[in-house]
Amino acid sequence: MNIGQLTTPALVVQHALLEANLTTMAAALPGTRMRPHVKAHKCSALAARQAQLGHTGFTCATIAEMEGLSRSGLGDDLLLANEVVDAHRLGALVRDGARVTMAVDSEQIIEAAVAAHVPEVLIDVNVGLPRCGCRPEDAGRLADRARRQGLTVRGVMGYEGHIVGLEDRSRRMELLEVSMGLLQKAHEDVGGDIMSAGSTGTYDINRWATEIQAGSYALMDTAYGKLGLPFAQALTVLATVISVSSEWAVADCGLKSLGMDHGNPTVAEATVLFCSDEHLIFSPQRPVQVGDRISVIPAHVDPTVAYHEFLHVTDGEEVLDHWAVDMRGW
Amino acid sequence: MNIGQLTTPALVVQHALLEANLTTMAAALPGTRMRPHVKAHKCSALAARQAQLGHTGFTCATIAEMEGLSRSGLGDDLLLANEVVDAHRLGALVRDGARVTMAVDSEQIIEAAVAAHVPEVLIDVNVGLPRCGCRPEDAGRLADRARRQGLTVRGVMGYEGHIVGLEDRSRRMELLEVSMGLLQKAHEDVGGDIMSAGSTGTYDINRWATEIQAGSYALMDTAYGKLGLPFAQALTVLATVISVSSEWAVADCGLKSLGMDHGNPTVAEATVLFCSDEHLIFSPQRPVQVGDRISVIPAHVDPTVAYHEFLHVTDGEEVLDHWAVDMRGW
Repeated sequence: MNIGQLTTPALVVQHALLEANLTTMAAALPGTRMRPHVKAHKCSALAARQAQLGHTGFTCATIAEMEGLSRSGLGDDLLLANEVVDAHRLGALVRDGARVTMAVDSEQIIEAAVAAHVPEVLIDVNVGLPRCGCRPEDAGRLADRARRQGLTVRGVMGYEGHIVGLEDRSRRMELLEVSMGLLQKAHEDVGGDIMSAGSTGTYDINRWATEIQAGSYALMDTAYGKLGLPFAQALTVLATVISVSSEWAVADCGLKSLGMDHGNPTVAEATVLFCSDEHLIFSPQRPVQVGDRISVIPAHVDPTVAYHEFLHVTDGEEVLDHWAVDMRGW
Repeated sequence: MNIGQLTTPALVVQHALLEANLTTMAAALPGTRMRPHVKAHKCSALAARQAQLGHTGFTCATIAEMEGLSRSGLGDDLLLANEVVDAHRLGALVRDGARVTMAVDSEQIIEAAVAAHVPEVLIDVNVGLPRCGCRPEDAGRLADRARRQGLTVRGVMGYEGHIVGLEDRSRRMELLEVSMGLLQKAHEDVGGDIMSAGSTGTYDINRWATEIQAGSYALMDTAYGKLGLPFAQALTVLATVISVSSEWAVADCGLKSLGMDHGNPTVAEATVLFCSDEHLIFSPQRPVQVGDRISVIPAHVDPTVAYHEFLHVTDGEEVLDHWAVDMRGW
């Protein structure tokens, strides 16, 4: 199949760039030093390739992602790096043979793990991002409580999400040291082998974590593209020009095919003016025609991919494969 | 089923409010004076209720929406109010018995209609929104060309999208008169019975259009909520509180369950601080507990619904039905 035959808008992944990203990461953080986060791609075929390259443990944000990996035979060591109040579907995965670890940051979430017969947890620690995670000084107490309830506490996790997107690398390193200092102290109180943290934005500077939860590096977006990392923009949204006026042009790729929280997407040799539900309005530097195809680079990969059914894997003009985005929903 | 049993995040539609919105609109613009736009809900069950109330013609933004309506027996008069370069799937709908009309704004799109054997078109006219639509002065020429190619030209359409969200009603009316003046002039040049325009934001002030393409009124969002229209917020995203600290709380409803182009969603008696992929971080005015359910009102309904598989229709705590959002994708 030729790329020209794809119905647009369509997610296109350049196979060579994806492979380069995956192998670069596997060389930097081999094996279980990397615990790929699947929330950015939600694609079990892509996860299978990450596992082939040695990363046999995975990070998830939703139960649906945990189920998708387990169903695909990738359930060796699954971490739900997020709190859930009703964990009974995770208990079912355990009974099916998956190794399941839950993040817990309160007594209520510990109760949820116990009630669902999820045997293993990490204590989720707030390391500066105002989101989930207990106070560092409460981590030891929560670990004790979890153990008293019969759970195995494998260690701690703490996501430095307030740092990972900072463009100044030295500032990123400086703040990371503070965050990881908090996590390290909590780890001492908690025990266990694991100190899980990180992201694409800190994969090469987080020397404290025992494992890194990076996801975006595989496909990339313009937000992480600003950081000067050795990962290429492997994902684009292919769109068709449907209308051209003297001052602007319109392509069929809008708010329902792009995550917009980080702002407008980018189009080469063009200025993006605005997006509406099914339209991207842009001012091209060179004339375009109705029917032309353009490549749109999303500002934020995760909520972009979540709108689409397939990642179309390409080599030049050839479509090699259609990988289902099979871990959407909740 | 009780609402408490829904897996969150979940789209919840209060049946009584939806019915009130639909009947209010059907009273204001009965029968074919309204051509409901399905892009906001993408749900054939909801469209079927709109048809029951007398609106037997529909507006679509994508071919997938046209196919969904046709498949559901709602193909009496389907308008694709958007340009497409490859219309062959629309031709298949025509052969299956649907009445299909395409918006055309260039010679290339007229060619696409001809090539696909789509028999009827509207000339799409730019009435001030810098998006699709030909220049008003080109509409007559395009209509002539379409007729020479054997197409039936049913009239014109022109979407006043730059006006529909203005909060000042008198300003909305003033600019609308300018836009509809342009469309009226084009209509004189084009001929045909139809002058299709409008939106939820102008449904009651657009006295020029022969039919109104409103969609958001059925479910509503905070953007249209500001206009003082007689439509209630029927849709909310139900979320579960998963983490609580002394200063903020976190619910499981993030960027992958909310359209974010219009900004943050709203939560009653709380300030929304930010959203990340699967999290909404908010500062509640009253204490909340892990496990509490909250209702989140999206800023923009269309790209919110497009992330979800179901609209859960409720009466108080009871879930009456699960309507599939069955017209997603392209």
